[in-house]
Amino acid sequence: MTAVNLDHISANPLLLEVQEAMIGAIRKNYGNPSSQNAAGEEALEALDAARQSVSQLIHCKNEKEIVFTSGGTESVNHAIKGVAFANADKGKHIVTTNVEHGSVTKSIKRLSQLGYSVTSLSVDAKGRVDPAEVEKAITDETILVSVMHSNNEIGTIQPIEEISKITKARKIILHSDAVDSVGVVPIDVQKLGVDVMSFASNPYYGPTGAGGLYIRRGVGIWPILDGGVQERNKRAGSENLIGIIGMGVAADLAATHMDQRVAHVKQLTDLFLKELPNYIDDYYINGDPENGLPNLVSVAIKYIEGESIVLMLDDDGYIVSTRSACATGSLRASHVLMSIGLDHADAQGTIVVTPGIENSPEDIMGFLKALKNIVKSLRDISPLCRIG
Amino acid sequence: MTAVNLDHISANPLLLEVQEAMIGAIRKNYGNPSSQNAAGEEALEALDAARQSVSQLIHCKNEKEIVFTSGGTESVNHAIKGVAFANADKGKHIVTTNVEHGSVTKSIKRLSQLGYSVTSLSVDAKGRVDPAEVEKAITDETILVSVMHSNNEIGTIQPIEEISKITKARKIILHSDAVDSVGVVPIDVQKLGVDVMSFASNPYYGPTGAGGLYIRRGVGIWPILDGGVQERNKRAGSENLIGIIGMGVAADLAATHMDQRVAHVKQLTDLFLKELPNYIDDYYINGDPENGLPNLVSVAIKYIEGESIVLMLDDDGYIVSTRSACATGSLRASHVLMSIGLDHADAQGTIVVTPGIENSPEDIMGFLKALKNIVKSLRDISPLCRIG
Repeated sequence: MTAVNLDHISANPLLLEVQEAMIGAIRKNYGNPSSQNAAGEEALEALDAARQSVSQLIHCKNEKEIVFTSGGTESVNHAIKGVAFANADKGKHIVTTNVEHGSVTKSIKRLSQLGYSVTSLSVDAKGRVDPAEVEKAITDETILVSVMHSNNEIGTIQPIEEISKITKARKIILHSDAVDSVGVVPIDVQKLGVDVMSFASNPYYGPTGAGGLYIRRGVGIWPILDGGVQERNKRAGSENLIGIIGMGVAADLAATHMDQRVAHVKQLTDLFLKELPNYIDDYYINGDPENGLPNLVSVAIKYIEGESIVLMLDDDGYIVSTRSACATGSLRASHVLMSIGLDHADAQGTIVVTPGIENSPEDIMGFLKALKNIVKSLRDISPLCRIG
Repeated sequence: MTAVNLDHISANPLLLEVQEAMIGAIRKNYGNPSSQNAAGEEALEALDAARQSVSQLIHCKNEKEIVFTSGGTESVNHAIKGVAFANADKGKHIVTTNVEHGSVTKSIKRLSQLGYSVTSLSVDAKGRVDPAEVEKAITDETILVSVMHSNNEIGTIQPIEEISKITKARKIILHSDAVDSVGVVPIDVQKLGVDVMSFASNPYYGPTGAGGLYIRRGVGIWPILDGGVQERNKRAGSENLIGIIGMGVAADLAATHMDQRVAHVKQLTDLFLKELPNYIDDYYINGDPENGLPNLVSVAIKYIEGESIVLMLDDDGYIVSTRSACATGSLRASHVLMSIGLDHADAQGTIVVTPGIENSPEDIMGFLKALKNIVKSLRDISPLCRIG
């Protein structure tokens, strides 16, 4: 039995076209793009073609504003630490939010160990930060504002465009972690007004191990990987050319099929939200489905443990993820769910459903049936369950 | 015409077995090794099998001492910056040599911008650092000694075992950049006595974009990429699983065929060294061929420019590399060649010949013939050429 993947936020399959491009690159045995010989030049051309594709996906002014990285986490670390180090003479204060991805919060935490100070803003019940709060948090020492584009646990999309007006006026660098948005929803770096933006490849069916960082021309930023002159001196190290070639093809496909893909996953999440009350009760939807990622629904299911649900669903052939503490390898409940006001128990009972382009309405209906039975079994044995 | 690759230090072809393993991984469409479901568990097993293979290649006590990275440059940056940041309370002094790879020198230069001090040791005419000089350079503030295992430009192997006795006695962390040694010559981290060691995958015919860092248990080191809990909290970010699987297979093959491979490339470099005087004059050999990498010869060819030689050889179907300034994208002559006493002109005329396992004695003989003609043509028009 092939499992039905409703956990695209954790792992997207590689599209066939992406697979074929990567296999072609493996068989071709490219040279080193930094070598001045025919084999190296071919490699450099392939690298630059991928850069062009990615650049078009996010509407860069110039493809030279793209730096290839090993993935979203490297991009975020590069962005935050790179801006902080390069601008330390201007100040050491960073503004961020309470609902960022771990790569953002932990990069900033590292910087706080090195003498940087941080203002981390709370969000409303839907997970949204108020741009006015960002403005209030900015001081003369502020060098960086880092606010994610969309939240990977609850799907909430942040008001980046409004925030960028503030950071522009105050001449502060704005970074946005857009790992779960780029290739998933339309993204235009010009319109958003970001100075630095992190993204990956897997969210749009490209390989893990490949990502990118948009750096608007003129932004002061250190590399996080120092060494050779690759990526115009912005990121040293031999490129993951096979992965980057896959990423380029995935970017082309994402740009071409953006509207259909959004419509397809939105149809599936809408179906799930509409049918859910017919299958379970005592749940609520986290985040802001009306204005969030079209491919994500976060559901807090009362009285039971997310990890148990996920394991039982796996046995039934459905893959979703949970934000329960054990499952994510941390000791505490999700900081995102706590930030939007969930109590510990409800945070533990949250599952995240993220359909992808290969899913069908039948997948959703089958999943709902499986979920119904599992919720019933778990509640029957749950010490948390309401009496009634 | 397929070019004869004598520039394996820049780009190794993927072995067929490595290609097949990577293609298999692409087609399999693995899950996320961090996900707690069947697809994730399979991915985790593949990751750990690769870790086992790499661990055996360098003789770790425990495979958990291996952290996968995006390549040699990330490993080096992680090692140097990670140790420096984690041990700043003990001191901020670093000892290194004048002939390290750019990833080492530039990582240390970054740290010097953050208040660290550096003692960079000179080397002898063969490129070797004297362990006694390392000992003398150590102060009460020293937290890290970073000395490469083998030099990527001249092949010289450093006396790491002797240096590790000193660092052990002084309780200072020893990092070795072994990117061009691991998988190429036998490496045993126990015997070497290193605390942290950087390596990659491409030098033993694995893919670029995959590398590793050996971290002896108990060594204080920060991650360079903060975020998720991957790699036992030592390196965040979704793994380049396809690349790592290729790296694992390449490591197995390197371990199995180490002796034959060393003998094969040594036969080719010996042939080259023996025949070279029959083809050109006015050259000399850099480094220490007797005690250096078996697969590398660095030749300073007087009166001509390395870049011209390389471009003309490329036209003739032979790929080698040069350390001339233009070709490496920097503005200055190689710091390694200057450090071993070459003048600027001779450094500019240096080519690096690195045969690999697919080369034959015929490749070397053909290359020598091509080199002879090119050297003659270039010298005929060279303003640097001796009058005679």
